Amino acid sequence: MAKRIGRGTAELTCRPAILGQAAVGGQTEKDGPLGHAFAEIFAEARLGEKCWEMSETRLQQAAMRHALTSAGCTAQGVDLHLGGDLINQCSATDFALRELGIPLSGLFSACGTFAQALAMGALALESGAFTRVSACASSHFCAAEKQFRFPLEFGGQAPPTAQRTATAAGAAILGQSASGPRISRVIFGKVTDLGVKNANEMGAAMAPAAWDTLRRFLEDTDTKPGDFDVILTGDLGEIGSLLLCELAQAEGGLDISGAHKDCGLLLYDTKAQDAGAGGSGVGCSAAVLCGEILPALRAGALRRVLFLGTGALLSAISPLQGESIPAIAHGVEFTVDN
Amino acid sequence: MAKRIGRGTAELTCRPAILGQAAVGGQTEKDGPLGHAFAEIFAEARLGEKCWEMSETRLQQAAMRHALTSAGCTAQGVDLHLGGDLINQCSATDFALRELGIPLSGLFSACGTFAQALAMGALALESGAFTRVSACASSHFCAAEKQFRFPLEFGGQAPPTAQRTATAAGAAILGQSASGPRISRVIFGKVTDLGVKNANEMGAAMAPAAWDTLRRFLEDTDTKPGDFDVILTGDLGEIGSLLLCELAQAEGGLDISGAHKDCGLLLYDTKAQDAGAGGSGVGCSAAVLCGEILPALRAGALRRVLFLGTGALLSAISPLQGESIPAIAHGVEFTVDN
Repeated sequence: MAKRIGRGTAELTCRPAILGQAAVGGQTEKDGPLGHAFAEIFAEARLGEKCWEMSETRLQQAAMRHALTSAGCTAQGVDLHLGGDLINQCSATDFALRELGIPLSGLFSACGTFAQALAMGALALESGAFTRVSACASSHFCAAEKQFRFPLEFGGQAPPTAQRTATAAGAAILGQSASGPRISRVIFGKVTDLGVKNANEMGAAMAPAAWDTLRRFLEDTDTKPGDFDVILTGDLGEIGSLLLCELAQAEGGLDISGAHKDCGLLLYDTKAQDAGAGGSGVGCSAAVLCGEILPALRAGALRRVLFLGTGALLSAISPLQGESIPAIAHGVEFTVDN
Repeated sequence: MAKRIGRGTAELTCRPAILGQAAVGGQTEKDGPLGHAFAEIFAEARLGEKCWEMSETRLQQAAMRHALTSAGCTAQGVDLHLGGDLINQCSATDFALRELGIPLSGLFSACGTFAQALAMGALALESGAFTRVSACASSHFCAAEKQFRFPLEFGGQAPPTAQRTATAAGAAILGQSASGPRISRVIFGKVTDLGVKNANEMGAAMAPAAWDTLRRFLEDTDTKPGDFDVILTGDLGEIGSLLLCELAQAEGGLDISGAHKDCGLLLYDTKAQDAGAGGSGVGCSAAVLCGEILPALRAGALRRVLFLGTGALLSAISPLQGESIPAIAHGVEFTVDN
């Protein structure tokens, strides 16, 4: 059973365990500081497909295959899958699940989808309805450029505040186990919008959502930033990360700079790899969490992590219609017992 | 607590109650057989907005306003919102929640999203993490035509197998109560694809998914079609409904024609209203359930209903890329005690 400890915040008594996890990525992701963290690298960006959307489906299937192996179970042993992506109508996920055959609950929180999948999956397990659930989320640089900006052939240039969509997927299998990282608390984000209208300023658009969720989580759980080994945001990048630290200082009187890390800044060497203000995309935080952070928790190198999956909820046309960018951040707390 | 009774199928012991519900729609929906079922009608399709996408956001907000009134609570009294729509990146929902301020878990199962929202919301309540949750789903004829087919100005013609996307939204508030319709069991659908490639044959694409979920539900719960007052599919329309009945007969030896109804066929007088093979869209099943079926359960006119929300998981471009149409159906069983 879970316990309500705030509006949208829950403490989990069964504390579902991460039974296994895996990240897969492309060549640029392999060339970055976390190149070692991927179970499989696809140097050929199309993954043998004719359309970028289907290439992303193959990323998801590969991540799930490795995660299932890591957990020592088969797709047939999973009761429910939770996942999503950035492709219109979440079709990378829908097509991936057509072959996996696990009952599907499709989710969308833009780049915060993996945190949402873990949070919903943990609650579903706490309800007692399932034995094991899986979570997967992905993005593909070429699919995202085509859909949100320009096809690659156009040769569009990005301003330095823009972030690079990761070609990556992360997947995790959740269930009951006495060992390994466990999900102890979850929090669902509110849609937050301070009026940023520039789609090349995603970090700035998302930082207030990350702060809102962090502030509520610390209040609801009576914790402080120093209680966590890492407060890990999804893809705030350089600018959003600075803004989150500033917001925490200005509005909460909190110095989070010691504990805060951002998946978008961990994934690439932004300067050397021409990754703008850092990585982004649904697959960015999913891959960094599954490839680097969960293994560190499993190894005992980290003992308590607050993962804040950040998402910018714009569509390709909403900024052109004059709308500012709504954002959201969902939180998942991981702890290890032994 | 919930109890696992099959893979992706759960029996709920708390049986969350529907505390309130409402449907809103457009003029065509008012002119149909269920015109009486709407809490508010928007004769002006733009709802005062300049873009169809934002018009759909206003539909959601109106449905939520009426549902909250019906439940006798405010948005502030709701812990978590579950919902979605067909607009790219689910932006009708994201923008609606920007103003409602309820923590959001965004979902996508195409036209099956409302059933998914009720199922996920019921499980979240069973986990004990929340006091009240809300569910909302919407579609808008003009937004869907623009995004999936042609802008209205083009004057495109639809073949008779095509279905009309409803301009409608449905919303429900779930919590604990001794009276009213309750959710007793839920089942999550698997992605099913028998190879239909014609995007104007959605009913045919979705019927096998509806049958797969119905078959699994009947097996997992040891029930038969006659046990239900209504087996209510989302938007199979004329063709998909015929195919579902044929599949049930051929593969299960079951005659479901007596119990089966389809929201897409209830919403419009298909011949008189030029609605092709019937209504469709995320808002179709959400509005018919909230406007007609839940009130009938509340009044005792119905006592046991199996709602199968059907969704076609194609994107606007996936059929053009040669892909067939994956589909899904999630099930929610409603019962009344008194």
